[in-house]
Amino acid sequence: MERNETARVEAFSDGVFAIAITLLIIEVHVPLRDHAGELGHELLHQWPSYFGYLTSFLTIGVMWLNHHRVFTLIDRYDQTHLLLNLLLLLLIAFLPFPTAVLARFIETDGARAAVALYGVTMVLIAVAFFCWWQWASGGRRLIAPEVPQEQLDAITRAYNPGTLLYLGALGLGLLEPWVGAAAFLALAVFYALPRDLGRT
Amino acid sequence: MERNETARVEAFSDGVFAIAITLLIIEVHVPLRDHAGELGHELLHQWPSYFGYLTSFLTIGVMWLNHHRVFTLIDRYDQTHLLLNLLLLLLIAFLPFPTAVLARFIETDGARAAVALYGVTMVLIAVAFFCWWQWASGGRRLIAPEVPQEQLDAITRAYNPGTLLYLGALGLGLLEPWVGAAAFLALAVFYALPRDLGRT
Amino acid sequence: MERNETARVEAFSDGVFAIAITLLIIEVHVPLRDHAGELGHELLHQWPSYFGYLTSFLTIGVMWLNHHRVFTLIDRYDQTHLLLNLLLLLLIAFLPFPTAVLARFIETDGARAAVALYGVTMVLIAVAFFCWWQWASGGRRLIAPEVPQEQLDAITRAYNPGTLLYLGALGLGLLEPWVGAAAFLALAVFYALPRDLGRT
Amino acid sequence: MERNETARVEAFSDGVFAIAITLLIIEVHVPLRDHAGELGHELLHQWPSYFGYLTSFLTIGVMWLNHHRVFTLIDRYDQTHLLLNLLLLLLIAFLPFPTAVLARFIETDGARAAVALYGVTMVLIAVAFFCWWQWASGGRRLIAPEVPQEQLDAITRAYNPGTLLYLGALGLGLLEPWVGAAAFLALAVFYALPRDLGRT
Repeated sequence: MERNETARVEAFSDGVFAIAITLLIIEVHVPLRDHAGELGHELLHQWPSYFGYLTSFLTIGVMWLNHHRVFTLIDRYDQTHLLLNLLLLLLIAFLPFPTAVLARFIETDGARAAVALYGVTMVLIAVAFFCWWQWASGGRRLIAPEVPQEQLDAITRAYNPGTLLYLGALGLGLLEPWVGAAAFLALAVFYALPRDLGRT
Repeated sequence: MERNETARVEAFSDGVFAIAITLLIIEVHVPLRDHAGELGHELLHQWPSYFGYLTSFLTIGVMWLNHHRVFTLIDRYDQTHLLLNLLLLLLIAFLPFPTAVLARFIETDGARAAVALYGVTMVLIAVAFFCWWQWASGGRRLIAPEVPQEQLDAITRAYNPGTLLYLGALGLGLLEPWVGAAAFLALAVFYALPRDLGRT
Repeated sequence: MERNETARVEAFSDGVFAIAITLLIIEVHVPLRDHAGELGHELLHQWPSYFGYLTSFLTIGVMWLNHHRVFTLIDRYDQTHLLLNLLLLLLIAFLPFPTAVLARFIETDGARAAVALYGVTMVLIAVAFFCWWQWASGGRRLIAPEVPQEQLDAITRAYNPGTLLYLGALGLGLLEPWVGAAAFLALAVFYALPRDLGRT
Repeated sequence: MERNETARVEAFSDGVFAIAITLLIIEVHVPLRDHAGELGHELLHQWPSYFGYLTSFLTIGVMWLNHHRVFTLIDRYDQTHLLLNLLLLLLIAFLPFPTAVLARFIETDGARAAVALYGVTMVLIAVAFFCWWQWASGGRRLIAPEVPQEQLDAITRAYNPGTLLYLGALGLGLLEPWVGAAAFLALAVFYALPRDLGRT
C-alpha cells in the first residue's frame, strides 16, 4: 500500500469537509424583498443563523484539523478504516441540516427539539471520530513506525473527553436550549485554540 | 502517459463524488417555522429523507471506494476510458435528484414511480461502472503490469452480479415500493462491508 | 516556477469544473407533493430539465477534458494566463444559470430569449477558451520544450472552429429555439467523441 | 513538517475557495415561469445579480491568486497559521450571502444596509488576509529560506493598503450605495490586473 493511496483518501475526505463547511452558508437566508425598509433590522434579527454558521464552521474546521493531523501519523489504511472514515464523513456532511434547524427554531417552541437534533449529531460525530482514531491507533495498527508512542497517548488523552463534553452540552441543551447552544460554540472555540499535542 | 495525468482524472472524479455525496443533504428540508410546536414530531416524520440520505450516501461512498480501488490497478488511460468515466460521473451526480423524489413520494400514491426512477438510475450506474471496468481490464488494456491476473478476475466476479442485483431490487420496488427501497439500502450496506478481493 | 505550482492551478480549476458540473442537478426540481397521483407523468413532463442537464454536463465535461489535455502540454504559467483561466472558470461556473433558464422556458413564449442567453454563454466560453489556448500556445509561450509543434497546430486546428460552430447554433436558436438547443447537444456529443489530436 | 503537509492545507483551502466561488451562481435566480412573455426583459432586469456575481467572483478569484502566491513562499505552517487560515476561509465562504443581499436590495430602500453588510465582510476579509500574511512573514516565521527579503517587503507593501481601500469603498457605499458597489468591483478588477511583485 503506497503513500499516494492514503493521499487519495485524504483528498476525498478534504473534499467532503470543504464542501460541507462551505454549504453552511446556503442555509443563511436572504431576507424577502418586501423587508427592504427595515433591512438592517432584519439582518440583525437573523443572528441565530450567523451563530449556527459560526459554530458549525468552527466545528467542521476543527474536525478537519484533527483529521489532517491524524493522517500525518498514518502510513496505510485498511477496509475498516475506510468505512469508519466514510461514516465520519456521512455525519460531517449531515451537519448543515441540524445547523439550519437550530437557527430556525432556537427562538421558538421548537428550541428543545432543535438543540436535541444538533446535539445528537455532535455526539455521534465525536463517537465516530473516537472509533476512527481508536481503529487507527489501537495496537499501532495503521501508525507509521517513526511516530513515538507518547504522541499517540497524548492524542488519545486529548480526544477521549470529547464524547463526554458533547454529551454534557446536549444535556444542558435539553434543560435550557440556549445554554446548550452556547456550550457547542464554546467547545468549538476551545478545540480550535492551539494546544500542545506533542509534536504536531 | 505519466502517472500524474491519471492523478488528475482521479482528482476530478473525487471532486464530483465528494460534491454529489455532500449535496445530498440539501434535499433534507428544514421544517417550516409554523411547525415549531411539534418540531420533534415533524423531524421524526421526515424519516424518508434520512433513509434516502443514508442509502444514497452509502451507495456513492461505495462507488467511490470501488472507483478508487480500480485506479490503484490502472497505470494509464485513454479517451474512451475518460468518456466512460464521464458517463459514470454524470449518473453519480444525477443521484441527488431521484433520492429527493424517493424521499418525497415514498409515502404517497407516487411511490411506485419514485422507486422506478431511483431504481433505473441505480441500474444505469451499475451498467456504467461495469462498462468502465470492462474497458479498463479487458485484455488488461489499462492495467499496470505488476497486477496479477487472479486479482482482476476476482474483481470481475465481484462486480458482475451488481447489475442483476440492482435489477432485482428495481423489480421488487415495482411490486412493493418499500421492499424495493429497503433492498437498495441492503445492497449499499452489503457492498460497504469489507470483503476479500485479493490484495486491495 | 516549479511543476507543483501548475499543479495547484489545475487543482483549483478541477474544483470549479467539478462543482459546476455537479451543481447542475440542483436545478432539476422535484415535483410538488400534490402531484403524487401522476408522478410518472410529471417526471416525464420535465424532460427539458434532463435535456439541459445532459447538454451542460457534457459541455463542461468536454471543456474539462480539453483543459486537462492542454495542461499536459504546459510546464509553466504567467499572470495573464491565470487571469484568462479565471475568466474561463467564471463562465463555466455561470453555466448552471442559463441551463436552468433554458429548461424552464424552452416550452414557453420565452424560448427564444432563453436560447439566446444559453447560446451567448456558450459562445463566450468558446471565445474564452480560444484566448486561453492562444495565450499559452502562441510563440510556444508556456509550452513544454518536448511538445512537437505539429501537435500544437493540430490542437489549434481542432479548437479554431469552436466559436463559429457555437455562433451557428446560437443563430439557429434565434430562428427556431428547439433546433438551436438540439445543436448545442449535438456539439457537446461531437466534441465528446474520441478524436486524434496527435498524441494525447 | 514535510512539504506534503502544507500541500494538504492548500488543497483544503483550494476546495473552499473553489466551492465558494462556484456557489455564487446559486443566488442568481431563474425568473418565474409566468414571466415567459417578457423573459428577455426580466433577464436584463436582474442585472444586479450579474453585477454581484462578477464582483464576488473576481474578489474570491483574486484572493485565491494571492493565497496561492503566498503559499509558494511558505515551507511550513503552525497551529496559529492554520487558525488564521480557517478564519480567512470562514469569511470567504460567507461571501455568497452578502452578495445575494446586495443583489436583491441594491435597487430598494435597503441598499445602504446591503452595501454595509457587503462592505463590512470585505473589510473583514482584508483584515484577516493581512493578519494571515503578517503571521507567516513576520520575522520570516514560515518563509522558505531561499525567498529574498525584498520580495516579502514588496508583497507587504502591496497588501498593506487593502484594508484602507476597502474601508474607503465601504464609506462611499454608506454615502451613496451604488458608488460603493462600483468601488468594490473596481477594486476587484484593480487587484486582478497583473502587477510586478518581484518574482511571482
